[in-house]
Amino acid sequence: MIKVIKNGTVITMSSNREKIENIDIVIEDDKIIDIVSNYEGVYDEIIDATDKIVIPGLINSHTHLGMSYFRATNDNLSLQDWLNNKIWPIEDKMDEEDVYYGSLLSIIEMIKTGTTCSSDMYFFSEAAVKAIDESHVRCLFTRCLADINNDGDKRIEEFRNLYNKYKENELIKFSVAPHALYTCNLEYLKKCSKLAFELNLPVHMHYLENRQEIEDIKKMYKMKPLDVLKKSGLINNKLILAHCTFLDEDNLKAFKDKDISVVHNPISNLNLGCGIADITKYKNYVNVCLGTDSQGSGNNLNMLYHMSIVDLLQQGIHEDSTVLSSYDVLKMATINGAIALGLEKEIGSIDIGKKADIILLDMNDSLTSPSIDIITNLVHNAYNNVCMTMINGNILMKDKELLLNIDENELIKIINNRIKKLKS
Amino acid sequence: MIKVIKNGTVITMSSNREKIENIDIVIEDDKIIDIVSNYEGVYDEIIDATDKIVIPGLINSHTHLGMSYFRATNDNLSLQDWLNNKIWPIEDKMDEEDVYYGSLLSIIEMIKTGTTCSSDMYFFSEAAVKAIDESHVRCLFTRCLADINNDGDKRIEEFRNLYNKYKENELIKFSVAPHALYTCNLEYLKKCSKLAFELNLPVHMHYLENRQEIEDIKKMYKMKPLDVLKKSGLINNKLILAHCTFLDEDNLKAFKDKDISVVHNPISNLNLGCGIADITKYKNYVNVCLGTDSQGSGNNLNMLYHMSIVDLLQQGIHEDSTVLSSYDVLKMATINGAIALGLEKEIGSIDIGKKADIILLDMNDSLTSPSIDIITNLVHNAYNNVCMTMINGNILMKDKELLLNIDENELIKIINNRIKKLKS
Repeated sequence: MIKVIKNGTVITMSSNREKIENIDIVIEDDKIIDIVSNYEGVYDEIIDATDKIVIPGLINSHTHLGMSYFRATNDNLSLQDWLNNKIWPIEDKMDEEDVYYGSLLSIIEMIKTGTTCSSDMYFFSEAAVKAIDESHVRCLFTRCLADINNDGDKRIEEFRNLYNKYKENELIKFSVAPHALYTCNLEYLKKCSKLAFELNLPVHMHYLENRQEIEDIKKMYKMKPLDVLKKSGLINNKLILAHCTFLDEDNLKAFKDKDISVVHNPISNLNLGCGIADITKYKNYVNVCLGTDSQGSGNNLNMLYHMSIVDLLQQGIHEDSTVLSSYDVLKMATINGAIALGLEKEIGSIDIGKKADIILLDMNDSLTSPSIDIITNLVHNAYNNVCMTMINGNILMKDKELLLNIDENELIKIINNRIKKLKS
Repeated sequence: MIKVIKNGTVITMSSNREKIENIDIVIEDDKIIDIVSNYEGVYDEIIDATDKIVIPGLINSHTHLGMSYFRATNDNLSLQDWLNNKIWPIEDKMDEEDVYYGSLLSIIEMIKTGTTCSSDMYFFSEAAVKAIDESHVRCLFTRCLADINNDGDKRIEEFRNLYNKYKENELIKFSVAPHALYTCNLEYLKKCSKLAFELNLPVHMHYLENRQEIEDIKKMYKMKPLDVLKKSGLINNKLILAHCTFLDEDNLKAFKDKDISVVHNPISNLNLGCGIADITKYKNYVNVCLGTDSQGSGNNLNMLYHMSIVDLLQQGIHEDSTVLSSYDVLKMATINGAIALGLEKEIGSIDIGKKADIILLDMNDSLTSPSIDIITNLVHNAYNNVCMTMINGNILMKDKELLLNIDENELIKIINNRIKKLKS
């Protein structure tokens, strides 16, 4: 099956081709097999991209798909208040089906807004992975690990079972995910580190989300967070560290020659009063990519909305409009995400041999015209302009119409009923 | 002609009614004549608002409608670089027709995103006011005043003519708009102040947009900006001060008992590396409202996009999630805007006797469901959810369909051709 994306304005994000080109993309089954001007070979399907922007699918490097129930419920609450009073009491009541439907809503939100791969961390993982598998979206999946109620080993066992069941899946890859230093202990972190080495998987965890967390960790471990990373061995793993609102020089220097990525979650960090991570500085030391966090603190999973604020924030805190460009932001949302997730050979750019995870954006409307500086306009204004989403060569949305076999209105009703019940 | 907005989830923003109610709004011609549960009186038209949010139309307190040509053209440029190299060379070539069409595009953008009143400051005002008048939108209008090329008096004369021509217009009110301290001089500012007193109009101006501006003013006037305001008499006018990225204690104390409003323009201030205004502090001293600035530095005129970042920024810089609530932001975008513009008796809330400037939002989709905390979700996620816009009792958009007699696609083509020509 050969598909051709024809006549688009293409930003490949390939390291060999940092430019905007009018070019055709030829896809055979799941793979990009050619990138060429005016393709005239055989094909089964043409996707007309005339006057449309074509970019690699967006990669959300830190989220919690099952949490759509908590959309925008963070007004005037600190991280700790929000978790203790709004989130955890309801999560305690959630069941497998809640997580299944909650994840499904998040998946639809992602497809509609051009995210083709996400890095998820939640519980009731069998339910979530079912939703992901049924929807044919790409995911770096896990089961959230913690050792709060002495159930740490049970969680690892659940993770192993999950991993063994899905490890041959084409679209679902895995990470090992100790929730955070403050919800684990040193022995447990060591186990997680070993497990990740054994299975050759990256480690995905929350790290230094706010100042309070730093103090909590110091009290709990009688050492600094960085020393916990070192002592547990985790610092030598391939690490995906979400948040990192406060990385001091010691952390940055220790991270420099390691395989460590920081997932910036700007909206979530602002919403919960955590602060603003200085990624302008961080990017000299580590790979920096972008996450939405859940809808609870991130408002939504629309990566284009989150992208629009990234360089603005850096320009604001540095009082310097040159510190980060729109192109830097687009890299964070594509190729840098792929590097973080260990998937840079498969996704993150439009290159021959890579998987066909590609989106189209139609910017020809009154809210986004004129489009003079295409990348600046794309990064800052395109939050409602994704019109086609392709994952692994499959078109999941076309002309803004979802092609999944899901009744959206019915799903919204189910979600509304379930959250009402959970809150009662 | 009686219209009834029936069965909506209404947030009136009335000072007497800070709550969310299921209530009907009865409109006769341009005015709200009743707000009542289950209205059963006579009517000519029912607007079914079941499952929809109903709020007062949004008020954009600082913008430049003619500048849609410059949408998102600010990547990596400081305020001064951007004006000198990207904006002013093209503006020098613009003509009346450019401003007419540019304003028209901005007006469509506002109607589609729920802005019912804007405070505009630009040039070729006859062309802009024609676009506003034809579109039946509400505006606090002006002609930008400055005295750079010894044409200051000519500009004032143009303003007087414009004012006399339109002063009886129902939807168009006026402000006197010296561009900024650094583009005027003391004598000219005095003239502007007197003119505003004579005509009983507010003064709309840029004030302290970045640190460079403060230094420039000190050099030029040999005094601090605040002393220029005092010496020119402007401090005693009704003032609408756009930006105010850096208001120190002296400014705030001097403003406290005056009729002064600060228009916060967060996206523009971030984009141009100006910084982040501490409106958490300001609001104890002055009325704070919200502006988008032009699409050039503000990316777009979608107030709901701009609203979504306001409390987040304050929570980020203060590292405290309680400093500003979603409801505070909604006030800035409605009633506080009306107060700033001197229109609080006419607009800014849904109250009996006020003009019918009202919008409906449909939040029942996959990107905004569930909607548990209605105001938080509205302020942070509704940037694509306005479905009906009513100004002065006239419906200008219904079910997301624009009801103006304008061919949108044709207008976009005109804009694209004109900017191409202007840039050549």
